[in-house]
Amino acid sequence: MTMKTNPGNFFEDFRLGQEIVHAVPRTITSGDVALYIGLTGSRFALPSSDSFAQSLGLPRAPVDDLLLFHMVFGRTVADISLNAIANLGYANCRFGVPVYPGDTVSARSTVIGLKENSTGETGVVYVHSTGRNQRQDVVLDFVRWVMVRKRDKSAPAPETKTPNLPGEVAVTDFALPEGLDLTRYDTALIGQPHLWDDYAPGECIDHVDGMTLEESDHMTATRLYQNNAKVHFNQHSETQGRFGRRLIYGGHIISLARALSFNGLAGAFKLLAINGGRHVNPSFAGDTIYAWSQVLERIDLPGRSDIGALRLRSYAAKNHPCSDFPGRMPAGTGSKGAEMPSDLVLDLDYTVLMKRRS
Amino acid sequence: MTMKTNPGNFFEDFRLGQEIVHAVPRTITSGDVALYIGLTGSRFALPSSDSFAQSLGLPRAPVDDLLLFHMVFGRTVADISLNAIANLGYANCRFGVPVYPGDTVSARSTVIGLKENSTGETGVVYVHSTGRNQRQDVVLDFVRWVMVRKRDKSAPAPETKTPNLPGEVAVTDFALPEGLDLTRYDTALIGQPHLWDDYAPGECIDHVDGMTLEESDHMTATRLYQNNAKVHFNQHSETQGRFGRRLIYGGHIISLARALSFNGLAGAFKLLAINGGRHVNPSFAGDTIYAWSQVLERIDLPGRSDIGALRLRSYAAKNHPCSDFPGRMPAGTGSKGAEMPSDLVLDLDYTVLMKRRS
Amino acid sequence: MTMKTNPGNFFEDFRLGQEIVHAVPRTITSGDVALYIGLTGSRFALPSSDSFAQSLGLPRAPVDDLLLFHMVFGRTVADISLNAIANLGYANCRFGVPVYPGDTVSARSTVIGLKENSTGETGVVYVHSTGRNQRQDVVLDFVRWVMVRKRDKSAPAPETKTPNLPGEVAVTDFALPEGLDLTRYDTALIGQPHLWDDYAPGECIDHVDGMTLEESDHMTATRLYQNNAKVHFNQHSETQGRFGRRLIYGGHIISLARALSFNGLAGAFKLLAINGGRHVNPSFAGDTIYAWSQVLERIDLPGRSDIGALRLRSYAAKNHPCSDFPGRMPAGTGSKGAEMPSDLVLDLDYTVLMKRRS
Repeated sequence: MTMKTNPGNFFEDFRLGQEIVHAVPRTITSGDVALYIGLTGSRFALPSSDSFAQSLGLPRAPVDDLLLFHMVFGRTVADISLNAIANLGYANCRFGVPVYPGDTVSARSTVIGLKENSTGETGVVYVHSTGRNQRQDVVLDFVRWVMVRKRDKSAPAPETKTPNLPGEVAVTDFALPEGLDLTRYDTALIGQPHLWDDYAPGECIDHVDGMTLEESDHMTATRLYQNNAKVHFNQHSETQGRFGRRLIYGGHIISLARALSFNGLAGAFKLLAINGGRHVNPSFAGDTIYAWSQVLERIDLPGRSDIGALRLRSYAAKNHPCSDFPGRMPAGTGSKGAEMPSDLVLDLDYTVLMKRRS
Repeated sequence: MTMKTNPGNFFEDFRLGQEIVHAVPRTITSGDVALYIGLTGSRFALPSSDSFAQSLGLPRAPVDDLLLFHMVFGRTVADISLNAIANLGYANCRFGVPVYPGDTVSARSTVIGLKENSTGETGVVYVHSTGRNQRQDVVLDFVRWVMVRKRDKSAPAPETKTPNLPGEVAVTDFALPEGLDLTRYDTALIGQPHLWDDYAPGECIDHVDGMTLEESDHMTATRLYQNNAKVHFNQHSETQGRFGRRLIYGGHIISLARALSFNGLAGAFKLLAINGGRHVNPSFAGDTIYAWSQVLERIDLPGRSDIGALRLRSYAAKNHPCSDFPGRMPAGTGSKGAEMPSDLVLDLDYTVLMKRRS
Repeated sequence: MTMKTNPGNFFEDFRLGQEIVHAVPRTITSGDVALYIGLTGSRFALPSSDSFAQSLGLPRAPVDDLLLFHMVFGRTVADISLNAIANLGYANCRFGVPVYPGDTVSARSTVIGLKENSTGETGVVYVHSTGRNQRQDVVLDFVRWVMVRKRDKSAPAPETKTPNLPGEVAVTDFALPEGLDLTRYDTALIGQPHLWDDYAPGECIDHVDGMTLEESDHMTATRLYQNNAKVHFNQHSETQGRFGRRLIYGGHIISLARALSFNGLAGAFKLLAINGGRHVNPSFAGDTIYAWSQVLERIDLPGRSDIGALRLRSYAAKNHPCSDFPGRMPAGTGSKGAEMPSDLVLDLDYTVLMKRRS
């Protein structure tokens, strides 16, 4: 057999400052949107409805922010994380100009940090990835870091460089859709009467509902994004793997947590940023995902009295309803050393747009 | 945890004459159409084919009538049936102007009947729900009644009012698509030579084929419709529930029965009405659905010699082919007291449009 | 029960020269494209991306060649193979003018060969099937032969006639998309640096990755194509069938093998022809599909120095990675008598278009 196949990049293949053009630009269509709704059950009004989007001054329903995220992320997998042992984190993820069905997104990444681990067998790679539409407008922009295997343990370690990452996306980096006008915002159509002003920092919201994971669902979602990380698809090899089973793409759990959060946060009609995120534990087919959120901060948007930003921390748990969860979290949550409950699978810090009471 | 989540309406929350605007208008796209075909296997020519639709005088393929039904129904669940114990029935369901991919449907309901049950723990709510497109044309219109829990058993019973519901949709309420012209109707393309004239009242048709239900399929269909009734999705909580398993959305069974009916009723290219329907028994993943139909009536349409309406009663059964089914039905079927076979899951009375022999 | 259902054609129903118009023209949409990607994980740039297609001189992304194949094939099942015991083979399959989302494909077949088997219980039917778009351009054209049951063993055998089938599609039959221009072809976007010149006849490529089959996935794919062959859908009847389980549509395996082949053949952006194919063994849910390919031939295209054709033989195996597979193949593979490994499921001989080094 010849080596025409892509072995993926190993730790020593990455260089600081390296620019990577990712393959397969993807036209996102109303077909992708339908399948995304079918696989996640998302009910947010803006990506569901042209007429609702038009009532807010947009030309039609934009593509769901997380569908866009997965599509851009999916482009990067073959180059960045094919040999990854773990997706360690996300930071500074900013949503740019809205993407509409028919737009084509492509992705590039720059290596912004490298740090070999003390074992000499792996290293951490930090990349800044950018998604653009066919007009080269930035549609998404984020940093992620992954632990990647070395091909050759004896390869020399690169100079350590870890990027300075902001704890949260700056207000000045929030991109509001052009023409966004809330004067015709209808709480009856969005599914919840509560506005930005009604959410108090510290407040916890149990999203109540649960969604059971099926192999077919998570594989179809992950294939839709053309994310080709092997661990999600191959039961034959995973039988001998770390868990004995196919591991669910963490992004699918993010989407389920967001979809479940409609029950309590229906008015959070658009993501502005993902400040950080961690897949605390793995999820598998058969698990039932629940979610709860804590309001971290209400953020004023300069020059806008009609809308505000809400910084949230949403958690997903498996096989455990979340009504008792705030009390089960360790003290000092968020600090690196805190041990999370074993049924917690996701810890996501993100910022949404909401209408203010006028 | 604060109560920002939607607890759903309980029996005492409904008032006679109450108008409910349902959340999340939905743009139905060709993506939804594709997924509907993928999940049901529907093969009817009209919603499958722009060129066939154009040969009948329509601008392009309209959205499948049942996909539209599920989309409108899905809007209503969060307000009407989140605390329902049972969907008791449908009546007077009329399909209005055709919906085309790109149209946005929204839904409103009016409470038209209330009746507390003698136990004082539940009551029956009758609602008249209407779906409209973005131009406010009525696209669907139906009554359903559900048994809903009371929040508080001691809450006083409302005055009993039950609506007078017609046994069938009136001929004058049938809405034919504007411009419908059967002169170029091609039996070869529709998949069956039989026309309206070939179906005799009393005739029974075994649709032969069977379709096995998978968890992923019914959940994806139900999520596509943004129907958020909990019992369909959460295995973790249903393990302690009435059946120990996720219950399949009855509408998915209606769609499978209709898709299976292609084999024998391929010429029934459009639904005009659902006169009534009952989910006789629940279905679960692993069950195989079969269907058969009985012709109830051939109905002349005023001023049209080219098309006629056919009133049908279609039944779906689980894990039992339907060839012997007419003989297994109890005498007096349709009367309330008749005990249905335990493997019967659906009893649907509806009216379709068919070409007449000219 | 009356016989309005389609019993399918039995061997004695076919006549040499018979022309069959297949039912249900199908508009292929971006919804079908999305679902195809979701179910197969295909990552080829041309059908994924309008902007990539435009960089090659096409108006937008054409429908994936195999999605088109399945759609045309699906039209033919109800007439040709409903009573088939086996799909024996394909030959001379040529892809015609590209199909774009929104086009409607219809299918016709001509019976070109008949041969009763010596048992008198079955016969082989050869059909030439043609798919056309709404402008009556040929989009696909192929021969297949199936073993079909006789309704009545005592029916007289027809005169035996077996067609002369070419071992491969002739170069003069390759249809290149109009306007195809490779000057802006970008290997970074297509996902692989290797061009036509880099593939040597005899070379074997292990596509490495594996994809586990789920009931929901193969059924949804097969329903999407409106292929109604019963063995794929009905666990209740298959429990008593030959394998005790639902058999996976062989075309789904072809699609998975093609999708897996991206890893090593990403530059094979378009199919020109399927020269022949055989489903060597059946596949079932739970099996994991792997694939490998051998380069059979590099073919010059008349008048084109920028592109060439590559004839490939791709194999799919179940539950066995393909790295050791060339050595496991029997000597004389391809000859009828050679016994294939029992874990081999597909043997497909096809021709792709690739950019040449200029």
